[in-house]
Amino acid sequence: MASTVKKAKKSAEALVDESEALELVDGCQNSIDALNEQASEEILKVEQKYNELRKPHYQRRNEYIKRVSNFWIVAIMNHPQISCILEQEEEDCLQYLEKLEVEEFEDIKSGYRILFYFEENPFFDNTVLTKEFKLGTNGESPSSTSTAIKWKPDHDLTKMLPKKMDSNRRKRGLENRTFFDWFTDNNDPINDDIAELIKDDLWPNPLQYYLVPDIEVEPEDDEDGEGGEEFGEEEEVDEVEDEEEKAS
Amino acid sequence: MASTVKKAKKSAEALVDESEALELVDGCQNSIDALNEQASEEILKVEQKYNELRKPHYQRRNEYIKRVSNFWIVAIMNHPQISCILEQEEEDCLQYLEKLEVEEFEDIKSGYRILFYFEENPFFDNTVLTKEFKLGTNGESPSSTSTAIKWKPDHDLTKMLPKKMDSNRRKRGLENRTFFDWFTDNNDPINDDIAELIKDDLWPNPLQYYLVPDIEVEPEDDEDGEGGEEFGEEEEVDEVEDEEEKAS
Repeated sequence: MASTVKKAKKSAEALVDESEALELVDGCQNSIDALNEQASEEILKVEQKYNELRKPHYQRRNEYIKRVSNFWIVAIMNHPQISCILEQEEEDCLQYLEKLEVEEFEDIKSGYRILFYFEENPFFDNTVLTKEFKLGTNGESPSSTSTAIKWKPDHDLTKMLPKKMDSNRRKRGLENRTFFDWFTDNNDPINDDIAELIKDDLWPNPLQYYLVPDIEVEPEDDEDGEGGEEFGEEEEVDEVEDEEEKAS
Repeated sequence: MASTVKKAKKSAEALVDESEALELVDGCQNSIDALNEQASEEILKVEQKYNELRKPHYQRRNEYIKRVSNFWIVAIMNHPQISCILEQEEEDCLQYLEKLEVEEFEDIKSGYRILFYFEENPFFDNTVLTKEFKLGTNGESPSSTSTAIKWKPDHDLTKMLPKKMDSNRRKRGLENRTFFDWFTDNNDPINDDIAELIKDDLWPNPLQYYLVPDIEVEPEDDEDGEGGEEFGEEEEVDEVEDEEEKAS
């Protein structure tokens, strides 16, 4: 009853013609589909090419970043979303994070891994913690896996932290999960917002977060303010000299 | 207070080195940004190339589609979301829709237009109704415009319809806006879900919707079932011959 499209009785000839026309539409559709597939492949090749071209810059960047103490933990703590899962003890632990890397799989579309490289630290024995995402492009379901953390005695942060999940935490606007909760949780790999923020936001440009002023700076600590200073190409070492005087 | 990252007092030398390292990180970041821009441009070129390659197929498709009576209104009425804005009188009107086209602007990213070509009809004088979207890539705000419809006396569907927005409409699961409401409304161009469905879903493959069985088929009408039949390449004209017999 809903449809009021009037379909006139069609002549046999008209029917044959419509059927032929639909076959031809279907043929066009197949040609369009084939072109779409070609376009996707070509775009993927461009992405792969630029992934390769970016790699040496990311590698150089990692080397320079190593020279800046606490670079990654400062960048993470300044990130508006990622910082929300950081528990205080975890901040202490992540000071030992000396390198962070995101590697897309060769074909890009099938997955990626995030690698956290740690200096020797009081919390665990691992030197690399990896969280890897398979996006399930080959018919498998999406999945993620993470390195089993070899906690040192009495330093398992996943066991120490839950007792702290209290009003104090909510007051600070933090989420009810911690960094290591996130790292070890592989239950919902397709909606891993933190992994996506690391891959698509922090990793492409961590400097912008490192340089964002930390609002909760303690005034008595000279160096805390450093992250808040403008950092541009035209800037000279004057500023550093100023700090030199203060620091000495 | 929140941050427990301990920033040791740094020596003057360390400060200079960090500052240099940050300059170098910034340099890497600029190289990465430049590569990202190049990648975007290259991908856009691939998309433009395939847009051109698809065009003749879309044109041929349009010619074939013209040979199938009511193709577009049937496809639209079978579309799960677009059909929800169709008022009965509008279905009558859209029977005169003989061609639909989506044109992306040359550079793709700056906008697109949807063109509805009509046969002579009792509702309005226009032969083409166009709704055009500028996505505001050049610093302007996004906007949309639509052809002013020259309604024939007593046939302005935008004026006739509001009185029908009643429980009957809700009962049919329809939205509280009509096709011509959508067409003439340019208040929120960035969230135009119907335009996006036409551009990204209906236009790329209308045949799949044309062929979806219309659930509300009237059993006494032989031809109504046509849309529901499987339509594949391997199919021969036998089926058409069957219908020919019924129709004659």
